[in-house]
Amino acid sequence: MGRDKYVVGIDFGTESARSVLVRVENGEEITSSVYEYPDGVIDERLPGTRIELEPDWALQNPADYLATLKHTIPEILSQSGVSAEDIIGIGTDFTSCTMLPIDRKGTPLCMLKQYRDHPHAWVKLWKHHASQPEADRINEVARQRGEKFLSRYGGKISSEWFFAKSLQILNEDPEIYRACWRLIEGCDWIVLQLTGKDRRNASAAGYKAIWDPDQGFPSPEYFRAVNPDFETVVQDKMTLEIFPFGTRAGGLTEEMARLTGLAVGTPVAVATLDAHTSVPASTITEPGKMLMIMGTSICHMMVDKEFHPIPGVCGIVKEGILPGYYGYEAGQSGVGDIFAWFVRNCVPGEYREEARRRSTDIHRVLEEKASLFSPGESGLLSLDWWNGNRSVLVDTDLTGLLIGCTLETKPEEMYRALIEATAYGTYKIINTFEENGVRIKELYACGGLPERNKLLMQIYADVTEREIKVAASPQTPALGAAMWAAVAAGKDKGGYQTITQAAEKMASLRKKRFVPIPENHQIYNKLYREYEILHDYFGRGENDVMKRLKQIKIKIKERK
Amino acid sequence: MGRDKYVVGIDFGTESARSVLVRVENGEEITSSVYEYPDGVIDERLPGTRIELEPDWALQNPADYLATLKHTIPEILSQSGVSAEDIIGIGTDFTSCTMLPIDRKGTPLCMLKQYRDHPHAWVKLWKHHASQPEADRINEVARQRGEKFLSRYGGKISSEWFFAKSLQILNEDPEIYRACWRLIEGCDWIVLQLTGKDRRNASAAGYKAIWDPDQGFPSPEYFRAVNPDFETVVQDKMTLEIFPFGTRAGGLTEEMARLTGLAVGTPVAVATLDAHTSVPASTITEPGKMLMIMGTSICHMMVDKEFHPIPGVCGIVKEGILPGYYGYEAGQSGVGDIFAWFVRNCVPGEYREEARRRSTDIHRVLEEKASLFSPGESGLLSLDWWNGNRSVLVDTDLTGLLIGCTLETKPEEMYRALIEATAYGTYKIINTFEENGVRIKELYACGGLPERNKLLMQIYADVTEREIKVAASPQTPALGAAMWAAVAAGKDKGGYQTITQAAEKMASLRKKRFVPIPENHQIYNKLYREYEILHDYFGRGENDVMKRLKQIKIKIKERK
Repeated sequence: MGRDKYVVGIDFGTESARSVLVRVENGEEITSSVYEYPDGVIDERLPGTRIELEPDWALQNPADYLATLKHTIPEILSQSGVSAEDIIGIGTDFTSCTMLPIDRKGTPLCMLKQYRDHPHAWVKLWKHHASQPEADRINEVARQRGEKFLSRYGGKISSEWFFAKSLQILNEDPEIYRACWRLIEGCDWIVLQLTGKDRRNASAAGYKAIWDPDQGFPSPEYFRAVNPDFETVVQDKMTLEIFPFGTRAGGLTEEMARLTGLAVGTPVAVATLDAHTSVPASTITEPGKMLMIMGTSICHMMVDKEFHPIPGVCGIVKEGILPGYYGYEAGQSGVGDIFAWFVRNCVPGEYREEARRRSTDIHRVLEEKASLFSPGESGLLSLDWWNGNRSVLVDTDLTGLLIGCTLETKPEEMYRALIEATAYGTYKIINTFEENGVRIKELYACGGLPERNKLLMQIYADVTEREIKVAASPQTPALGAAMWAAVAAGKDKGGYQTITQAAEKMASLRKKRFVPIPENHQIYNKLYREYEILHDYFGRGENDVMKRLKQIKIKIKERK
Repeated sequence: MGRDKYVVGIDFGTESARSVLVRVENGEEITSSVYEYPDGVIDERLPGTRIELEPDWALQNPADYLATLKHTIPEILSQSGVSAEDIIGIGTDFTSCTMLPIDRKGTPLCMLKQYRDHPHAWVKLWKHHASQPEADRINEVARQRGEKFLSRYGGKISSEWFFAKSLQILNEDPEIYRACWRLIEGCDWIVLQLTGKDRRNASAAGYKAIWDPDQGFPSPEYFRAVNPDFETVVQDKMTLEIFPFGTRAGGLTEEMARLTGLAVGTPVAVATLDAHTSVPASTITEPGKMLMIMGTSICHMMVDKEFHPIPGVCGIVKEGILPGYYGYEAGQSGVGDIFAWFVRNCVPGEYREEARRRSTDIHRVLEEKASLFSPGESGLLSLDWWNGNRSVLVDTDLTGLLIGCTLETKPEEMYRALIEATAYGTYKIINTFEENGVRIKELYACGGLPERNKLLMQIYADVTEREIKVAASPQTPALGAAMWAAVAAGKDKGGYQTITQAAEKMASLRKKRFVPIPENHQIYNKLYREYEILHDYFGRGENDVMKRLKQIKIKIKERK
C-alpha cells in the first residue's frame, strides 16, 4: 500500500458551506472548514441596492459559493498538511432546488452589471416560496391533461421546484428568461465552475425537474399548455446530458486549481443533493432501511427495487438516490421548527432562568422535565401541522392542534406532546409506505436533532416500534459528497468501484442505538390511533375548519 | 324623614369574608371590612393535628366565620361612626354548598373535643370534590328510577352538592353521621348563630339539596334505594322549615349583639347565596336579563316566569333567585382560571419583563398586545374546556383544545383565542336557553373580570351580539345581602317592601357599557359556527378522544 489517499466533500448549505477532508480508506474526517455566506439568505433587499424583495422571496449570491471554495479548501489543506497530490477526488452536495440563470460562459446573470438590479437574475434558494401561482398552474394543467408524472410526486409539484421557479422568471421578468443561456441548479453550476462541464445530475433532475431516466422530461405539448412561451424550456434552457451520482464530471480546471490549491485535473464528481447523499453516508445501500434527516424538518429517504406509487410522497425517482434502485423521498415540513417555536413563544421565564443558572440549553431543561413523564401521562395529543403537512397529505393549509389541556398542564408536557406528534407523523409515513408495498425494517437517523435530544429519539423508537441507528458523522452530507468523490475517482486511483463499497469502508454508525420499549409502544399505539382519527378528520376533508380559519385570517389581513 | 338608615351585608367567601355597611336610601357603600380566614381552605391537614387529608378534600373552620363577625362588624361601626340604632337589618351571603354537621345546640362537631380529629366533623367547602363516588351513586339511582327532579338540574346532580357530601359522611364516618343533630348549610348555620333560629333558606335547598316548593325533597324510597341508612336523611338531619330570600329569620341574639356591637333584636334576613344575591344587586329583577358573574369561572343567572327544562343547566329552582319567578343557573367551569393557567405556563420571560418594566400586570400586557388583532386574524380557535364543561354538556372529563397554530403564532394570539373561546361558551349557553324558550335580551356582568379586562368584555359583547351592562358595585354579593336585609327589615322600619323596590334604590350600573360592533359579530358568528361543530364533535360522543386520553392518563398515573 502506498500513501493514504483523501477526498474532499463540500457541503453548500443555506447559511454557510463547509469543506471536509476525508481519508478514503476508513472515512475518517481529518479536518473541516466552515464558511458563513456574507450575503446569507437574501430576503429583504438585493445586495448593494435598495431594491426590496416581495414576501416569500429567498435568494442567494453565487459569489458566496465561489468564496467558499477559495476560503475553505486552502484551509483544510494547510490544517491537515495533506498534499494536494494525495487528494483523489472532489465531491459536492447542495440544497435543492436552488437554481439560477447563467450566460453562455457560465456566468450568473446577477454578476453582470446590466442585470444585477433584476431580482430574477439571482439564485433562487430552495425556500423561495414566491412561485406558488406558477406551481398552481403547473399542477392544474398536469391534472387536466392527466399527466402520469404526477404519480411520481405524490400527486403534486411543489412551488419550490425547478419549473415553478423557471416559470416565475418567464412570467415576471421575460428579459432575464430570454437573456439566460441555461437555467441551472446551483449544485450543477458549482460543478460547471470546477470542471468547465455542464453535467446535470440525475437526482436534482429527477426530484426537482420532473425528469425520469425512461420517460425524460414532460412533453413540449404539456409545457405549451402551461404557457406558450414555455414550450421549449427544456430544449432551450437545460442540458439534456444527465448523469447519475458517482459519475466523474471532469477534472479540476487550472483556474480552480489556482483558487483552491488542489491539483489540476483532480476528478470532480457529478453534483449531489444534501439529503440524498446522506443515505450512503449513514451506511444505507439497500432497501428496507429508511433514513430520517432530522432538523428543522425531517426528510425521509429510502430505496426500493420496485416502483410503488405512494400517496403523499415528495418524489420517487429511478436511480435518484442509489444506482439500481428507485429512490423514495417523503417529509415532514415542521419538526425542530415547531420545538423552536414552542421555546420562543410558550416557555415561562423561570424555565429560561433555570437554563441560565445551570448554564445549559432551554431545550435540555425541557427535555429533562419532559422525561419524567411516561407515555400517555400528560393526557395531551397534538397534530404536528404548525408548518402544514408535507407527507402524506401534501397540504400547506393545515395547521397545528393541541388537545387534552387542563389547568394542571405543564409546559414540559406540551413540549413532549409536540415531540410525540412529530413521531406520529413519521409513523404515519412509515405505515403509508408499508401499506403501498415498500417494507421498512429499520430506521436510521442523521442531522442535528439525534445528537441533541435523546428523549426525542427514544420516543421515535417507541412510537414506530423500530430500532433507530444514528450516523456517526455529524456532517453526513459532506461525508456523502466525499464518498461519491471516491467513487468518481474509481478504484484505480485509490477510490472505490461502487458506493456500496465506499459505504462499507467510509460510513459508520454510533454505538448508541435507540431500542423501542414494548410497554411504551403499546401505549403509543393507542395514542397513535387517536392521532390517525384526528389526522383524517381534519386532514382529509371531513372537517376543513383549519382551511376555513386560514381563509378568514387571510381576508382579515388583506382588509387591514 | 328621620335619620338615615343602614343595613349590614356580610359576604362569606372562600378565603376571606367582608362586611359592608350600606345606606338604605341609595345603596351607598359607606365602609367595609375584610377578614382573612386564619385557616383558609383546609386541604392538606386538619388544623392543630397531623391528620392528612386525601386528594380532592377541601374543608373550612367554622370558627373563622364567627371570628369574621367579631372583627368586621365592630370595625365598620367604628369606621363609619354610624349608631347601631340606625342599622335596621343584617343580611348574609355564603358560598354553597358549604355544609357541616352540628349538634343540638348548634355547635359544629369539629368544635367538640371528641370529634375534632374526624375530618368529616369539619365544614365541607363548596369545592370539596371527594364526594364524586357518592354523586355517581345518587345519579345512577335517580336515572334508574326515572326521578323527575333530574330535569331541574340539567340531568345531573353534582359532587359539590348537599346529598353527595352528606352521603360521603354516612359512608366514611357513620359515627359523625349518627352523632350530628343537623346537616346544615354554612349559610343557614351563620343565621342560626345570629338569631338562634334554624331557618333553612329556599335557594340553597333548591339549588343544592334537590328541594322544590311544590315537590319537596326526593322521596324516602329514593334515598333508601341509594343507601338503606340514608332513607330518612331529610326527616332526621334537616329542618323542614324552608324560607325564601327576604324573610326575617329572627332578631339578633344578646350574645351576638355583644360580639358585634349591633343592637339586640336587629332583624336578620334568611341566608342568601353569593351568586344568587348578585342578581338584584346588579339591578336585575325581571326576566330577559342574564347576569354573568365573571371570575375564575362564570355563573350565569336569570329568572323567568315559566319552567323550561334546559339541557345542561345547573339548576332551575322556583323562587330560587327572586320571588315569583323560576331561577335559572348555568355556568362555565373555567374562565379566569384558564387565563391564569396561560399566564403561569405559556408566557415567555420577555412579556413578564415588559410588565415589570412598565410596572403593570402581565394580563394587561397581554390584553394590549391581543387588542391589536382583529377578530379572526389569529386563525386560532379554542374549546374552553381546560376545567371540563359545566353548561351545556355537564362533563368534567372534557379537556381544552387549541387549533390553527402556525410557526408565526404569538402568545397574545393564543391568549385572545382563549378569551374568545370562553365567550363562545357563554354564547352557547345563551343560545341553548333561547332554543328552549327562555329569551335573553340583555347581558349584565359583575365580578372581578369586567373591571380588569375591557378587551374580554368587548369580545363577549361582539360574540353574543348583546350589549353588556356592568354592576356598579365591586362587591355585589355583600350589597345583595344588604338589600335582602332591607327587605327583611320591611318598609315600616325604613327598609323596603320588595326586592324590586330595594333594587331600584340601592343597586346601580356603571356608565361604561359594552356595545357589540356589528362587523366583529359577523366574523365571530363564522368562528362560532366552527366552535359549535367542534363542540358537538368532541363533546357529544362523535369522537370521545378527550375521555380516552384522560382514561389512559389516569391508568398511567395509578401505575406509577
